[in-house]
Amino acid sequence: MIIVMKPRASEAQVSGVIHRVESLGYRTHLSRGEETTIIGVIGDDRPIDRTQFELLDGVEKTVPILKPFKLASRDMHPADTLIFLNGQNVGGLQVIVIAGPCSVESRSQILEAAHAVKEAGATALRGGAFKPRTSPYSFQGMGEEGLQLLAEAREATGLPIVTEAMSPEQIVLVEKYGDVIQLGARNMQNYTLLNAAGEARKPVLLKRGMMSTIEELLMSAEYILAKGNSQVMLCERGIRTFEKYTRNTTDINAVPVLKQLTHLPVILDPSHGTGKWEYVSAVAKAGVAAGADGLIVEVHPNPSEAMSDGAQSLKPEKFAQLVKDVRRVAEAIGRS
Amino acid sequence: MIIVMKPRASEAQVSGVIHRVESLGYRTHLSRGEETTIIGVIGDDRPIDRTQFELLDGVEKTVPILKPFKLASRDMHPADTLIFLNGQNVGGLQVIVIAGPCSVESRSQILEAAHAVKEAGATALRGGAFKPRTSPYSFQGMGEEGLQLLAEAREATGLPIVTEAMSPEQIVLVEKYGDVIQLGARNMQNYTLLNAAGEARKPVLLKRGMMSTIEELLMSAEYILAKGNSQVMLCERGIRTFEKYTRNTTDINAVPVLKQLTHLPVILDPSHGTGKWEYVSAVAKAGVAAGADGLIVEVHPNPSEAMSDGAQSLKPEKFAQLVKDVRRVAEAIGRS
Amino acid sequence: MIIVMKPRASEAQVSGVIHRVESLGYRTHLSRGEETTIIGVIGDDRPIDRTQFELLDGVEKTVPILKPFKLASRDMHPADTLIFLNGQNVGGLQVIVIAGPCSVESRSQILEAAHAVKEAGATALRGGAFKPRTSPYSFQGMGEEGLQLLAEAREATGLPIVTEAMSPEQIVLVEKYGDVIQLGARNMQNYTLLNAAGEARKPVLLKRGMMSTIEELLMSAEYILAKGNSQVMLCERGIRTFEKYTRNTTDINAVPVLKQLTHLPVILDPSHGTGKWEYVSAVAKAGVAAGADGLIVEVHPNPSEAMSDGAQSLKPEKFAQLVKDVRRVAEAIGRS
Amino acid sequence: MIIVMKPRASEAQVSGVIHRVESLGYRTHLSRGEETTIIGVIGDDRPIDRTQFELLDGVEKTVPILKPFKLASRDMHPADTLIFLNGQNVGGLQVIVIAGPCSVESRSQILEAAHAVKEAGATALRGGAFKPRTSPYSFQGMGEEGLQLLAEAREATGLPIVTEAMSPEQIVLVEKYGDVIQLGARNMQNYTLLNAAGEARKPVLLKRGMMSTIEELLMSAEYILAKGNSQVMLCERGIRTFEKYTRNTTDINAVPVLKQLTHLPVILDPSHGTGKWEYVSAVAKAGVAAGADGLIVEVHPNPSEAMSDGAQSLKPEKFAQLVKDVRRVAEAIGRS
Repeated sequence: MIIVMKPRASEAQVSGVIHRVESLGYRTHLSRGEETTIIGVIGDDRPIDRTQFELLDGVEKTVPILKPFKLASRDMHPADTLIFLNGQNVGGLQVIVIAGPCSVESRSQILEAAHAVKEAGATALRGGAFKPRTSPYSFQGMGEEGLQLLAEAREATGLPIVTEAMSPEQIVLVEKYGDVIQLGARNMQNYTLLNAAGEARKPVLLKRGMMSTIEELLMSAEYILAKGNSQVMLCERGIRTFEKYTRNTTDINAVPVLKQLTHLPVILDPSHGTGKWEYVSAVAKAGVAAGADGLIVEVHPNPSEAMSDGAQSLKPEKFAQLVKDVRRVAEAIGRS
Repeated sequence: MIIVMKPRASEAQVSGVIHRVESLGYRTHLSRGEETTIIGVIGDDRPIDRTQFELLDGVEKTVPILKPFKLASRDMHPADTLIFLNGQNVGGLQVIVIAGPCSVESRSQILEAAHAVKEAGATALRGGAFKPRTSPYSFQGMGEEGLQLLAEAREATGLPIVTEAMSPEQIVLVEKYGDVIQLGARNMQNYTLLNAAGEARKPVLLKRGMMSTIEELLMSAEYILAKGNSQVMLCERGIRTFEKYTRNTTDINAVPVLKQLTHLPVILDPSHGTGKWEYVSAVAKAGVAAGADGLIVEVHPNPSEAMSDGAQSLKPEKFAQLVKDVRRVAEAIGRS
Repeated sequence: MIIVMKPRASEAQVSGVIHRVESLGYRTHLSRGEETTIIGVIGDDRPIDRTQFELLDGVEKTVPILKPFKLASRDMHPADTLIFLNGQNVGGLQVIVIAGPCSVESRSQILEAAHAVKEAGATALRGGAFKPRTSPYSFQGMGEEGLQLLAEAREATGLPIVTEAMSPEQIVLVEKYGDVIQLGARNMQNYTLLNAAGEARKPVLLKRGMMSTIEELLMSAEYILAKGNSQVMLCERGIRTFEKYTRNTTDINAVPVLKQLTHLPVILDPSHGTGKWEYVSAVAKAGVAAGADGLIVEVHPNPSEAMSDGAQSLKPEKFAQLVKDVRRVAEAIGRS
Repeated sequence: MIIVMKPRASEAQVSGVIHRVESLGYRTHLSRGEETTIIGVIGDDRPIDRTQFELLDGVEKTVPILKPFKLASRDMHPADTLIFLNGQNVGGLQVIVIAGPCSVESRSQILEAAHAVKEAGATALRGGAFKPRTSPYSFQGMGEEGLQLLAEAREATGLPIVTEAMSPEQIVLVEKYGDVIQLGARNMQNYTLLNAAGEARKPVLLKRGMMSTIEELLMSAEYILAKGNSQVMLCERGIRTFEKYTRNTTDINAVPVLKQLTHLPVILDPSHGTGKWEYVSAVAKAGVAAGADGLIVEVHPNPSEAMSDGAQSLKPEKFAQLVKDVRRVAEAIGRS
């Protein structure tokens, strides 16, 4: 950390700051410029709350030097983390595709969806049993019964199950019936939930909050890692901006940025990233071209009758085409 | 709801849409323009998932007509909701002030803060025992012990306690020790938590998510109201924008907008809204001038030693001045 | 400026950076931490393009220490700049009010508006002759004829004229007919225009771009000041965010931030800041309470027939009430 | 356009609105729901200022039905517009690449850059002679001399020149020396400039403002088209969001959205879209995979000595690799 003094800070103020820093067990390093003085704080591998220094007399601002995440950082763990899923290594050479409906709605719907995405080449089946909905009057998911139907779909197709949990109790249920615990965008900073996921023994798919920075996403992953669960996949699913033509803005930059900053696998969700099925295929190809390790795509046997997110769901035949197109892009960049 | 057909939609497509709408029990009303046809859907007081219609052949888009919130709406409940707190009616003529430190840190700290804000004229004491922190390595709050210290501070000063809960279990504890259950910005769309708050028997202070729309804030209040708890205060605490000079951007517009849309009291948080103590007083005065029913302000006996949010905390003497200044503004607009 | 080296930068890389910095005429100051090394660059009162250093081998990032604006900075010019307008000092104790229609539409309209706002207590008359419109098919303003009508309104009422110029040629015309040259939000970074305004001999009202930072606003003011025109007023008129309920989000924080950073007067535009007349009065009061030196408000004799911005224009009687309300708030904070 | 009445609007208010609409020459169509009444306005192919109706008694809001752009719309002009550039059709099957330094800095620099990008396979040379800079103290470009050097580089390599104009006078100069007139992000709503570009006889590359919606970009293109210049390429170059890790957020969704809404070619700028050279290649590949008709990339013979934008400029050898990588992605999606 660096402490920048105000342009006309007095000697007494500079000494005061140095005294305070050293009393906390750090060393200091002074640098005097023509207009201002800066004080380097050395030995700060423990996290410091920088704001306490910003209030000392004569201080203009503080500047962090080290990244605030450690376990998630590629500096600390240069090799890619691989997560084994259905015979493939997520984060390795292969690009995986998770697909299925937004919500589990009925036995026939989820079985039909599971067979369709399997045939098209999907690696895993997604489907929500617990649904976070903006309105209390909207369909809230089938609950445990939905999880049982997902488990049945796995029996029928062999596809592992990716499904969301919204509370520690639901994490226990998802561990019982499913294979990957999804934590949704609205819960990215629900620390009670992150801690519970850190104690689970199944991989976690952590979605970026629609209002969260890349650094905050990595800090939330850090919560899970710090509790001992090292199987975390990160998911870019679009952020909120002023643009109104699409539901969200897919932050495609986040793909290479995350691949550089962290060893964890990166998944792109073009369905939520755009919010309109017409754009899903183009953005899926873009995600793979940018280096994503996988995709998560909403597919529904009959989107116009979906109980949620119909507008961004693909019909099975369009999804089959997307898998073919994406495969060609993956090959063009040396993946499979 | 209105369904807008594409410019060159065929008669068969128009009939298809009408048939679908009517099969769901609604009436339709057709309007043919020179370039496009629109279909009004009548009888839709039940919430409809509009996206199911957007996928029908020939449909360009759908447009909602009714507001999605009901119990929170002033249309349904024209009179202001009043919430009784320490002898005052929040939402009435008086402007209330909730103040105290970000976190409870020790017995002496919270007692000193409580006495200071009481003397300055505060209505209630705030202070966090459970802290949502971006980093797992930051101070996470004192937990139940912190709640006990808050209860002790209430004994000593008579000030009711406003404190945050991050899980249903914590709501039970806050009900036991405190007076108002605060739900934080990061949990505004934690529906498990909103449902639990709806079943609590103490008033709720619901903070707007830092990237949530006003409509989403009202939809989250709707969750609480729908479960039977009608004592909800809404809190504008700044939204996230591209501006970097302040920690957040106080959405001052939200104050008159909320007062028009809803009957619930509106509280402004100038501490989080700005993130720097130098600007808190100016924005507090602005909030009252704009019509807020109250303020929630961070005050710490010694901000430079605070374990969280020191940079935006006021010293007690500055807070006392703020209360005086705010009182004059309140009187200037006919409040007290 | 500070240069932060990568965690594992070699000695040769550190020497390389030092050599480069010193070859440009600066001195360096080295500080070695446990994980990283930082290099202070001393003597950089000339503006440096920091990016050139970010590309040197072993460099992680650079951090600016000094503010990039000088002439606009309160550090350089502690006393408030006062701009004389119609017998008042903008930036002094009095809060001024500029009011009038969005566009000049006809002789009768502008004269009626001028008399109405004068009677209500306005300091100056606004009205656009050259209109920046999103659509090429919308009304583009009356041009020079509109300026002549504004000059006639000044004759009739004594109110000075504030009106927008969109090109250097129009600045010449506004100087001839008007009193204050308004530069609009969409042109805040039109440097051709800023340079021309810097050579004009009338005061400038510079509006913040709807997605420009406070620092960029001050840098644009710096262009005008650097060309020799020291009479610049800054105008906060709302920024673009994700919130859709209002047209823009009034950045009320910007008022105290600007008053701290710069000596230039700060004007608030609650009409564009909200985009809906119902909220104009609340936000006008908020702006004055937060410390703005003045307001600019859209007033139209008959808003529902306005050729632009009708939805955010006040009727004259509502504006008269606003002036009364604002006066009471100004007095409550010790201004007039 | 649709006019939505307030829930309890009276018959007299409904009649008043109908009367007003019909007095302006439109027909109306009434639709009564259970809670509200809506009035369709028929015959509005002329642009209407909707706000005038929002102020009539009893009106809640108005909703546009038709898109505000016409000449730019694919509805009006289904076939792709092709722009001939250096033997290729921009907007056709081939993906083009425009490359070169941010600024022209010297004869040797621009010639070296021109030869390097030509050898790597670029279609055209970019380079700025007039530079819009945030700070008045930064390098502002070489002016006409820079244009002469660009013309010399064209002589030497055969590459057509893409270069920015910031005023109508500069458009005349760019027409004289260059091949494509670039209009920058900060000037996207500089209507004086758009009108002048509409009268030019060279193609225009119009960059999206960092704060502008897709619809506003198309409205700005409409200004140019309406003046008679049909040779317009649109350029997505990143928008401003809350994310701080990259300089801008590349709006990859905008690529398929624009290809659907308009017949004009779409170019992606991954250099400004990310702001860091490490991410340029990944985002360039993503842009082509998403369907962009071309790329514009910053390349500098020696980025660490660039006078502007060094941090986002590629070295020639990295650019040569990018062209190879992009070619493989283009082929994977059936382009060349």
